[in-house]
Order: sequence, then C-alpha cells, then structure tokens
Amino acid sequence: MFKDSEKTSNIEPAHDEPLDPGRPFHNIAMTSRRGFLTRAIGTGGGMVALSAGGLAVGSAAWAAESATAKDAPSLPDAVSWKDEDAFIVHGLNPITMETRRAAFGTSTLVPDTRLYIRNNLPVPDPTIVANRDAWQVSFEGVKKPKTLTLEELKKIGLHTVSTVLQCSGNGRGFFPHGASGSQWTVGAAGAVVWSGVRVRDVIESLGGPTSGMKFLTSTGGEELPAALERNTVVVERSIPLEKAMDDAILAWEMNGAPLELAHGGPLRLVVPGYYGCNNIKYVARVAFTAEESKASMQQTSYRIRPIGVSGAPDQPTMWEMNVKSWVNHPTADKEIAPGKVLLDGVAFSGMDPVEKVEVSVDGGKTWQQAEFIGPNLGRYAWRQFMFTAELGKGTHTIASRATDASGDTQPKARVENERGYGNNSWQDHAIEITVG
Amino acid sequence: MFKDSEKTSNIEPAHDEPLDPGRPFHNIAMTSRRGFLTRAIGTGGGMVALSAGGLAVGSAAWAAESATAKDAPSLPDAVSWKDEDAFIVHGLNPITMETRRAAFGTSTLVPDTRLYIRNNLPVPDPTIVANRDAWQVSFEGVKKPKTLTLEELKKIGLHTVSTVLQCSGNGRGFFPHGASGSQWTVGAAGAVVWSGVRVRDVIESLGGPTSGMKFLTSTGGEELPAALERNTVVVERSIPLEKAMDDAILAWEMNGAPLELAHGGPLRLVVPGYYGCNNIKYVARVAFTAEESKASMQQTSYRIRPIGVSGAPDQPTMWEMNVKSWVNHPTADKEIAPGKVLLDGVAFSGMDPVEKVEVSVDGGKTWQQAEFIGPNLGRYAWRQFMFTAELGKGTHTIASRATDASGDTQPKARVENERGYGNNSWQDHAIEITVG
Repeated sequence: MFKDSEKTSNIEPAHDEPLDPGRPFHNIAMTSRRGFLTRAIGTGGGMVALSAGGLAVGSAAWAAESATAKDAPSLPDAVSWKDEDAFIVHGLNPITMETRRAAFGTSTLVPDTRLYIRNNLPVPDPTIVANRDAWQVSFEGVKKPKTLTLEELKKIGLHTVSTVLQCSGNGRGFFPHGASGSQWTVGAAGAVVWSGVRVRDVIESLGGPTSGMKFLTSTGGEELPAALERNTVVVERSIPLEKAMDDAILAWEMNGAPLELAHGGPLRLVVPGYYGCNNIKYVARVAFTAEESKASMQQTSYRIRPIGVSGAPDQPTMWEMNVKSWVNHPTADKEIAPGKVLLDGVAFSGMDPVEKVEVSVDGGKTWQQAEFIGPNLGRYAWRQFMFTAELGKGTHTIASRATDASGDTQPKARVENERGYGNNSWQDHAIEITVG
Repeated sequence: MFKDSEKTSNIEPAHDEPLDPGRPFHNIAMTSRRGFLTRAIGTGGGMVALSAGGLAVGSAAWAAESATAKDAPSLPDAVSWKDEDAFIVHGLNPITMETRRAAFGTSTLVPDTRLYIRNNLPVPDPTIVANRDAWQVSFEGVKKPKTLTLEELKKIGLHTVSTVLQCSGNGRGFFPHGASGSQWTVGAAGAVVWSGVRVRDVIESLGGPTSGMKFLTSTGGEELPAALERNTVVVERSIPLEKAMDDAILAWEMNGAPLELAHGGPLRLVVPGYYGCNNIKYVARVAFTAEESKASMQQTSYRIRPIGVSGAPDQPTMWEMNVKSWVNHPTADKEIAPGKVLLDGVAFSGMDPVEKVEVSVDGGKTWQQAEFIGPNLGRYAWRQFMFTAELGKGTHTIASRATDASGDTQPKARVENERGYGNNSWQDHAIEITVG
C-alpha cells in the first residue's frame, strides 16, 4: 500500500491541506463570476496576498471589501465553469472542492464540471493556457537534457489512459482524532481519461536517464513568492524511476478537451495508480534524480506517520493507492420505500484492477456480491457497481468492500495516522439509510 | 446497412434538417448568453414563433430587435454552457451545431460541452428539468399499460452503455448534388456514455408487449403547434421490437451528469448502434405497435431514396449505422514540418465493433494498419486510432478505412441519395495536408 523512501531531512510539512489563516498564503484577492470582488482573508499582518493571476505582497485582517449578500463570492473564475451544486466547498484559498457523494453519476467517468479540485498553490494566470503549445518543460537527468515545448511533445507520441485521481486525504473526515486539512469524505476522487505522451517515449528520445538515477522528480510551474524558501512551498514530488518509465504520461487533454487550467493545464504529469499529489500540475521540470526531492512536499508532507509524530522521510510516502470502494446511492437524505432498493457505487485500487465488490446491508455481518456495470476502462480506472437489496422498514447500515486482482481486500478499520491519509476502511465509508 | 420497412403512405418529409425560412417554425425568439435579445427570423407572415421555452403564434419578416454588433446573439441559453469555439453553427432555429473536426480530442469520449446538437423542434421549456424525477412516460402496447415517473423508472433497473450518437446526415456536406439540410462534414457525431434503465426491464415489469406488436414507437414530449397537423411535426420514430428489447435504454444521465435539456433531458430513448433520430429526446410515450408510426418522420423522412425521388415507406429507413472512420488530426490549417507526423482519428460501426483501421497517405493507393489507442468502451462506442506517417514536402491525401467485426469495410464511394444520408465513403472523408 505505501512504500518507504530514504531518510534525507526532517522539515515540517507545508502541503496537503488548504493554506489556512495562520499559515503562509492566507490572503487572497478573488474575482467572483458575478463580477469583480476583492476579498482579503487573514488573521494577521505581513502575509502574502494571492490572486488567481499570481502573487503579490499585502497585509489584511478578515475583511470583505465591496461584498454584499447579493454579490457574495461564488466560485472563482478558474472554476466558475464547474457545476457548483455538485460540490462541498472546503476553501477557495487555494480552491478546495469535494464532489458531493450524491453528485457522482453511474457512467464511469466524472465530467470535469463535477471533478474535485485540490491545489497546493493558487491557480496560475490564465495567460499560460492562451497559447498552450508554447508551454515549456525542461528535461534533466537525461543523456541529452533539453527544454521541449508542448508542441514538440505532441509530435513524440500519443497515449490515452483512464485513471482515478484521488487526494491522499480523501476520507480524512472520518478520522476521529481531528486530522488537520480538508475534511474530505468520499468526493476528493474521480475517474477521468487523459491523453498525452508517455514519459518513456520522451525520455528515450533524449537518450534515456543518466546512470545512477532512481527517481523522477517533477516540479510545478507555479510562480513562488520570493519571500519564502523555495523548498517549503514548491510543488514538487519524486516517484520511482521504474514507475515513471512504465506508464506515467505528460497529459494535455482530459475527458476529450484541452486540460483546464484549474486541473493543471496546459500540461500535467499523470501517474496512474498513484495518489493525486504525484500528478504535478503545470509541470515545468521533469528530472531524473538520484535522491528524492528536498521539497517539504516530498520530505515530510504526504507521509504516513503515527498520531503526534512529525513528518520524516523514513515514513511511507503517498505513492500507490490502496483498494477502496463506497456506495453513492441511495443517499441518506432521500425517502426510501420498503422493498427492492437499488444501490450503486464505485470501486478501484492502485496498481491492480478491482475484481470483486461485496455489499452488506447489515453493517458488515453478511456480504453479497455486487455486479459491475458499464464499460471497463482499464486497470487504473474505477468500476461502478450496483446491487439490489430487499429492505424492510427501519435503519440499515450499507457498506461495500472491494477486492483487487492482487487479492487485497478493503479492511474494516482505517490505519490511524496523523494526517488522515489513505483511508480505505469499509466501516468508515458505510452509510446509514432509513427505509419507511 | 439500412433496413426496409412496410409501405404505409407517402407524405412529404418534414424533418431531418433545421427548419428554414419558408418552412413552418421559422420565427424564433431567443435569449443570448450575453443578455436578453429578441430576434425574429422569417420570410413571410402567418408563421409560428418559437422561443426556447415553448411555442407562440407570431408573424415577422427578417428583423433583429435590439441587436448590435456587440451583443449579437451568441449561443442560446439551452446551449450557452457549450464551448462555442468547438463548433460550426449551422443554425440556431432549432439549434444545429457541428463539432469542428479539430475540436475532437483523443480521449474516446466527447464531453457534452463539445457534443453536436441537432433537434427537430425547439428545445422545451427548462421547467421540465426543474424536477426531473417527476417526468412522466406512458407505456402502451404492453399487457399492463401504465404511466411511470422517472423516479419510478430509476427503481426498476440500472444499465450503463457507451454509444456513438450520429446524425443520419453526417457527411451530407460531401454530396455534390446539394442535398438539402445541414451541410454536416464529420462533426454531427460523438461517443458518449449513458446511464438509464433497459427498456426490456421496464417492459417486463409491465407484463411484456401485447401480441402482434412489431415495433417500438417512441414519441418526444415537445409541445406541438395546434395549427399544424400532428403527424407532420411530431418527433416520433419506430424501431424493430427485437432491437428495443435487446439493448435500448431510457437514459437520464450522459457522461456522468444528469442529461442536459438540450440533449433530451430529463429522459431520452437511447438505441445503441442506430442513427441519432431514433434516440428520442424528452421521451413521453413508449408504445409497442403493430405498424410503424404514421408520423412524417417515420413514413417519408429519414429514407434512403434516389436523387429526385420523394420519400416513401418502402425505402430503407435510417436505423443501423454503417462502418465509418475519419482522421481528425493533423488539421489542414496547421503548419506541418517534414518527417514523422502523428495522425489520429475515430472509427465505429452500427451493431458490430470495429476491428481494424487502415490509413493511406497517398489518397488510397496503399494502406497500412493503424493502432487503436485508449480504453475500449464496448461494441457501440467508437475507438480512437493513431498512425505515424513519414511525410516529405508536398501535399498528401490522408484517408482512413475501418472494418468491423462482421467484415464490413468502409467503401471508397458514397451511396448517392436525395437527402445525403449514411455517408461513409473513405474518399469523401479524406483530408489534404500540405507539408513544407
């Protein structure tokens, strides 16, 4: 489920949750889709102010300028095209939006209008998608280092793959110890289809990795505030070299349209089967390295660690996802009549496809096999399943439990950990519905 | 490719093209997404005026009230959420929009923001999607006739399937005789995923079809103008009973979101492998019948007939689609350097999956096999293919030719016919690109 990595240093984590008041980046200038609106959010002075378009220095306490009930900020421009009703908004600073459980459909893919958003830094200026083909990526740690434009990358190859994008902290909201970060339930995940070029094909055109390299270290192209030390804020992650060469891609398209800015356009590294944080948005540097990145995001954030313990590089990092499923419908807020009740949900794993989903309508005492529905988009996609239950009047606890091709089955209990990562407990994801 | 049907009558066709000036329905009241704007279009008096919301009687000559260059009508409200740049707009009255060849991606599915639109009648009032679950469908020609709400249908079953939606006239623009109707090139088609309930499951819950029934006749719920004879304007199609029971569904979801009003929401009949016209939007009546519908749309429209001959029920009707493919990229309007050039396109058939695509870069003299890319969404979806060509300076004619599992191969020449239906000629779909 998680893999160890070498110990290199011990820096406090600065990522994997929205940047709150009391942390860097807690002032924001925002344009709502209903008109221009400046809103400054913070608890103290001397902080860095952000706009959707970049970084600027400012200082403010909680204040809402020109804001009235009528033109209260709705979704920021970068995500104004999303279906607002489909989301639980955890924060707009940076944008942190979870798909409501009831808003998941049954058609395998999640459309971009309903896909969760979790950015470590504010969304860059839209000018970077004005001429997508001009986007540049430097390739390092290869025999022929080179900077290539997106236009050049498109000529090297084409590969299309469906993956589940999932935040490491999806399910954090079920941890009882109050893990810090967004209190995601199930909706920081979604299956999508990507098109791009295989990292392998690009790297082979550059002579392959130089010898001694063990990791692919990728860096986001977000502008960083000069006042802060690079490694504390940069979006940078390392993954094993073999994984990168096996099936990572540099993607410019998602679900049949050019990749939206908010989701990492014009170019994003996609690492099938790995947690979201490894899928670097606005990827500007792709480097083979002998060691993992020195960025906090790699060294100490995204580490599975006991409650109360600081993040450190000898702890398991959030690479491969674990086997997981949950029921989406019916939802607890709908009236349900006694009799035949149709349940549906999603199931997936990391490196292996799911092979079986079982459903329990008695809180895990007994289990019955569910049926997969819809097209199978491959090992890294999720499957949707359905199950017909006979339910009498009363309250029923509905759970699902997936098993993947390697034989891993979703456990009953979560693995307790400080940051609330990797929750695949079937018990935590169970729902209670009342019939009658 | 096409199937014959019984001769019943001989009425002039009234469908399968936008309603032009000089025909019924040629006045329109429209709200642009840039503000309210009324625009009346027509050539003579006494015509029926339409709004996005329904039907009203009016009379007007060509006129544009309050229209300035600045607030000229953009897309009507019903499709204002679409990516306008991805389309060739053939008409807004009713809405007729073709996906640009260059706007097709390589990720298998076409997102709803880029999917073509072709409605026989104006889009109904949005109130019909305000409470989707309340939509009613009457089931007739069954042992226990009944009207069911969408909420009730959702309890009967759940089925998810990917299909290619394609207008019968897709490719009409390549016919040299000037076939009347929208001059579609390739973009009146798209692969999507539907979720709904199998017609079979609903019909079985109603005791099955009554004896002697041969067709499923479905009717759209659009409001009809009282001044016109029902059968000349109603959207109603018949398909063989066996096909309906095999795999037709009543769909409420497309691509993971509730079906958009413009695409037939809250409920649409989906007939996998059949041309678009059989996929009845706003489906309000589903009836097993002994004969085909008496509507013009069934009797005389959507018939393959020699040039100059009127439509008649003894001519083949537009049911099963034929095997087809085309290259989407590169597009002729982009500069292409000599050397390795990546081509991509789409391929599909009607009742059988495509098994092979060949590409020619010399106008059909020689052919080489292309490679399928991306997930396979099943027999009714389309596959995307890619091919790497070595191209020198000069002009090259690029063609693709698909073969399906039944052994049918795309022909070189189109089948000439009055309305320009069913064009799958590889020659017509070839593109010329200049390398230099």
